[in-house]
Amino acid sequence: MTLAAPHVDTGDTAWLLAATALVLLMTPGLALFYGGMVRTKSVLNMLMMSFVSIALVTVVWLAAGYSLAFGDDLGGGLLGGLEHAGMRGLGPDSVHGTVPAVLFATFQLTFAVITAALISGAVADRTKFSAWLVFVPVWTLLVYVPVTHWVWGPGGWILDRLGALDFAGGLPVEITSGASGLALCLVLGPRLGFGKEAMRPHNLPMVVLGAGLLWFGWFGFNAGSALGANGLAAAAFLNTLAAGCTGLLGWLFVEQRRDGHPTTLGAASGAVAGLVAITPSCGTVSLLGALVVGLAAGIVCSYAVGWKFKLGYDDSLDVVGVHLVGGIIGTLMIGLFAEKAMTGGAEGLFHGGGPAPLGRQSVAVAAVAAYAFSVTYGLGRLLDKVLGFRADEEQEYTGLDLTVHAETAYDHGVLGHAAPVSHSAPLSAQKVKTQA
Amino acid sequence: MTLAAPHVDTGDTAWLLAATALVLLMTPGLALFYGGMVRTKSVLNMLMMSFVSIALVTVVWLAAGYSLAFGDDLGGGLLGGLEHAGMRGLGPDSVHGTVPAVLFATFQLTFAVITAALISGAVADRTKFSAWLVFVPVWTLLVYVPVTHWVWGPGGWILDRLGALDFAGGLPVEITSGASGLALCLVLGPRLGFGKEAMRPHNLPMVVLGAGLLWFGWFGFNAGSALGANGLAAAAFLNTLAAGCTGLLGWLFVEQRRDGHPTTLGAASGAVAGLVAITPSCGTVSLLGALVVGLAAGIVCSYAVGWKFKLGYDDSLDVVGVHLVGGIIGTLMIGLFAEKAMTGGAEGLFHGGGPAPLGRQSVAVAAVAAYAFSVTYGLGRLLDKVLGFRADEEQEYTGLDLTVHAETAYDHGVLGHAAPVSHSAPLSAQKVKTQA
Amino acid sequence: MTLAAPHVDTGDTAWLLAATALVLLMTPGLALFYGGMVRTKSVLNMLMMSFVSIALVTVVWLAAGYSLAFGDDLGGGLLGGLEHAGMRGLGPDSVHGTVPAVLFATFQLTFAVITAALISGAVADRTKFSAWLVFVPVWTLLVYVPVTHWVWGPGGWILDRLGALDFAGGLPVEITSGASGLALCLVLGPRLGFGKEAMRPHNLPMVVLGAGLLWFGWFGFNAGSALGANGLAAAAFLNTLAAGCTGLLGWLFVEQRRDGHPTTLGAASGAVAGLVAITPSCGTVSLLGALVVGLAAGIVCSYAVGWKFKLGYDDSLDVVGVHLVGGIIGTLMIGLFAEKAMTGGAEGLFHGGGPAPLGRQSVAVAAVAAYAFSVTYGLGRLLDKVLGFRADEEQEYTGLDLTVHAETAYDHGVLGHAAPVSHSAPLSAQKVKTQA
Repeated sequence: MTLAAPHVDTGDTAWLLAATALVLLMTPGLALFYGGMVRTKSVLNMLMMSFVSIALVTVVWLAAGYSLAFGDDLGGGLLGGLEHAGMRGLGPDSVHGTVPAVLFATFQLTFAVITAALISGAVADRTKFSAWLVFVPVWTLLVYVPVTHWVWGPGGWILDRLGALDFAGGLPVEITSGASGLALCLVLGPRLGFGKEAMRPHNLPMVVLGAGLLWFGWFGFNAGSALGANGLAAAAFLNTLAAGCTGLLGWLFVEQRRDGHPTTLGAASGAVAGLVAITPSCGTVSLLGALVVGLAAGIVCSYAVGWKFKLGYDDSLDVVGVHLVGGIIGTLMIGLFAEKAMTGGAEGLFHGGGPAPLGRQSVAVAAVAAYAFSVTYGLGRLLDKVLGFRADEEQEYTGLDLTVHAETAYDHGVLGHAAPVSHSAPLSAQKVKTQA
Repeated sequence: MTLAAPHVDTGDTAWLLAATALVLLMTPGLALFYGGMVRTKSVLNMLMMSFVSIALVTVVWLAAGYSLAFGDDLGGGLLGGLEHAGMRGLGPDSVHGTVPAVLFATFQLTFAVITAALISGAVADRTKFSAWLVFVPVWTLLVYVPVTHWVWGPGGWILDRLGALDFAGGLPVEITSGASGLALCLVLGPRLGFGKEAMRPHNLPMVVLGAGLLWFGWFGFNAGSALGANGLAAAAFLNTLAAGCTGLLGWLFVEQRRDGHPTTLGAASGAVAGLVAITPSCGTVSLLGALVVGLAAGIVCSYAVGWKFKLGYDDSLDVVGVHLVGGIIGTLMIGLFAEKAMTGGAEGLFHGGGPAPLGRQSVAVAAVAAYAFSVTYGLGRLLDKVLGFRADEEQEYTGLDLTVHAETAYDHGVLGHAAPVSHSAPLSAQKVKTQA
Repeated sequence: MTLAAPHVDTGDTAWLLAATALVLLMTPGLALFYGGMVRTKSVLNMLMMSFVSIALVTVVWLAAGYSLAFGDDLGGGLLGGLEHAGMRGLGPDSVHGTVPAVLFATFQLTFAVITAALISGAVADRTKFSAWLVFVPVWTLLVYVPVTHWVWGPGGWILDRLGALDFAGGLPVEITSGASGLALCLVLGPRLGFGKEAMRPHNLPMVVLGAGLLWFGWFGFNAGSALGANGLAAAAFLNTLAAGCTGLLGWLFVEQRRDGHPTTLGAASGAVAGLVAITPSCGTVSLLGALVVGLAAGIVCSYAVGWKFKLGYDDSLDVVGVHLVGGIIGTLMIGLFAEKAMTGGAEGLFHGGGPAPLGRQSVAVAAVAAYAFSVTYGLGRLLDKVLGFRADEEQEYTGLDLTVHAETAYDHGVLGHAAPVSHSAPLSAQKVKTQA
């Protein structure tokens, strides 16, 4: 084999372009998934928390995040250098593997975006919007970027030194967002009325739509992580589908046995739990492994979302119960089900690899969870002191949509029927305001 | 030309990866399309019927369905063998044509998923959920899998022996789902109040959203069926767009003349009718043929959806009127419009191929429709006897959402306005239940 | 380098297939974006205006539009010939660059579709539906097709003679739709009650969903315009993301300072404004340029949408304020930020290209805006005289959904709760009508 100059493969690039668009769609999908779960009075705020994350994370990623995550290791596998700050050196002709380097950087950017947005589910309905605008970029630089370097950066300590595996982001995406969500909901405290009154999802079809878009985008997330259009991408794709399915079935099975009712929210949550768990493992385990990973996540997470009521932390939309717990399950199970045909070498306990891989996965999980939790907790406390991180009680009671964004999600005139809309409404819509 | 070892083409693979994701999105799209059409009291049940189909069909497809459909013919072109049960022999390195074999199997899986889900539209609002959970996997194995082998399996009698054509699934997808929908709505009987009271779609924008997602995904379905990124895929893509458009226009034209009003539901239904009809023919007919196929489907189906009122079968969301009738139109018209430039050989009546192709298409249509109808009818009756296939009258009256899933689709507090949500709701939300 | 016969590159084709599907999804996305912004009584009409545009534009594009736009120049760079009318000569084997010619024609078709649909936002709630059905195809042939030939047709005067640049459609898409929207809302006059009463968006989550789908599809629009899977596509992709982000931030920044509230509608509008502005420039400017283009559009457009209240034209959903203004910003700024690494030659003022490029861009903008405005104004007046272009006052007051389409968007029985749906509704649903 001769050493060829790096070149772009159009097929690999075509898939990664499509995959990057798919992953970006996940954040609007997540916005709807979360938005449907909250009460009518704060759905817009929920959507906004995701949408501003797209914008804020993009800016910090381009400015410095990408370089700190994927630049040459500064030593110890802890952080990359600033040589690519502002995307320096990533012109249209530079290449990463078989794809344009700028495409690789953009693909990774979409991961950073959704990770920050995921956290918002833990603190729904009560977060001060201005504090969120500060939190997101700082958190991305302090938590997401270093963990990503540990896992996927050149010389990162988790993959390159420890030898733990993570195909598509169990550690940097699922576990960091989950552990950070836990930290942040401890900082903010529970919603008014948490545990005392029903807080039903205001629009379950919106939740299902969000779950559908998430699942669709997840194929880009997981199969795109092969960074090419090949058999590994295809296997990761099928594993992603399979685990989402068994996650859904597992969750519904528990609900039926425990509560007597298989719910729509359970189906959506179960699919997401399976998808979360297969994220790190989709490119490392066999199909049977994927089915087990998804099933385990669906079952365990369906219980884990209830812990908050017992322990009293208000992880409002179950970021901890689904992303932290599911991410841990999927990352650890690589130690059991990793298969040489997928990994090119490493094998899990059930395929003859012995207990060591499970140990390595455990170290990685513990380190990332502890780091994300503690840094986020500290950052949350600091911001709470400096800016205030929680909305006023009055705002929370009335709803953040009206008090923060001066909007209401729905305005159906009289009753949502076709009756003529009232022609006497006050001149107060925000669009009319722009006249002033 | 030398005989090369089979190899993966990254461009073909890139398109098939994207196409597979697109087809999978069609099932959530269908869920919304159907969900918007039913009444508020059973929208969640409708969504669930589609979502559980994703999970159940995936499991049986991976276990045995793929192998029985695409395994080596067992004789007579009727069924494949079990050599690929559990996806045996489909590692990341095995190849089908120019794409990974596991990707081909996954692409085909997404077809099986939506076909089962399509049937749910015929039996909306009154199906016992537990019976549906049994029906879907059994039906997939008894109906979808054999018909797929007949049409696309190696040695299948319809394509390989009879010589009928079906590019993307008029027979296994549209006609089986339509004929099975007819059988099942006969087994279940009409909804309470059918023909006596209005059963208006509860949310037409949701229907339109679903139609939009279906159309988007259909490009993956049809153009993906070329199994590569080439001129045939492009021509199938354009034919798919063209037929959807003339289907929409044809339906609206009939509505305007017959009822005096072009409706949104008609636009969505007409586009879907055109898409259904072009599914078998998109890769076999010229552009002009595609325009005619779509127009014919739009016009004929706009009448066909009214037959149920005359004949008294309650095909609630028009699976028969759109998928069976549209599928027959599109499959037969291959016999008229097939063009050598597309098929590589076969030609329809209007392109000099004589009447024989039309005869072959008719035989295939009749065989598949008869098989799907009779097996489904028998299966439905059996399940009805053993498990009961119809929900209780009380459940149907109150709505399946509340009685089966313990949920309601929408909860807008007082009136959907931004008024403070009631803080005195009982502690009964399903999420809170997990405390128990 | 030898002269090779033209051949299809599967990777380039794979990306363009996916991109074409993405652009087509933008029109349903736009339908929701617009549909959420209008009042409940005319949301379906809004959706219909977009959906019929898909069908009508497709038919005229296939019949003649493509050929007139992309056929050989008839002289003067003004219009192409009819040699490809009816897609003649575009069989599955003909090639355009490295992709099937029929795919290139289909990709371009999806641009024509959304451009016509965009105009509907300027005339929401008061357009006679039958007149719209005539306007769309005629406008496409009279305005969209010639301008497209000027810009991208072989020998078109704007790119080939003037030397102005437009990567993905600032001139044919954004400026023509914006200028035509202005002309048409002048022809139709303002909505009843415009400026006197609040006309609030009836469903802001629907607006956000639409914006999310638009953004997703825009990656196909812009990065697909590279017509291949390469570094230029990747750079255009990242620029598209970056400008959408700074557009969003810029708009919210203005709102916060001016009104004290960052709104959801502002976030969605700002992202779209940034995307509009980067459309012409995504493949010509550096990343820094893209960030500036998006920010400028977000800020300027957030003011521009208020002009209608001062000047009294009812550009209902801000087609002028976002698409005309944003399109002009993005097209002009190519003259400032064009970079050799992207364009392969041309450079803007800030990269050493002097003031000439800005002059050329200005000429192109002025010519296209003037042409689109004046032809559309004339066409609008003519149609108004011949057919009437504005709905009756009674229809507008009651809402176009009920009066034109005989439907209502939502029907939640009693109150949208799970209460049993009334079983005494009259037998008047449109589906039941088909019995007659």
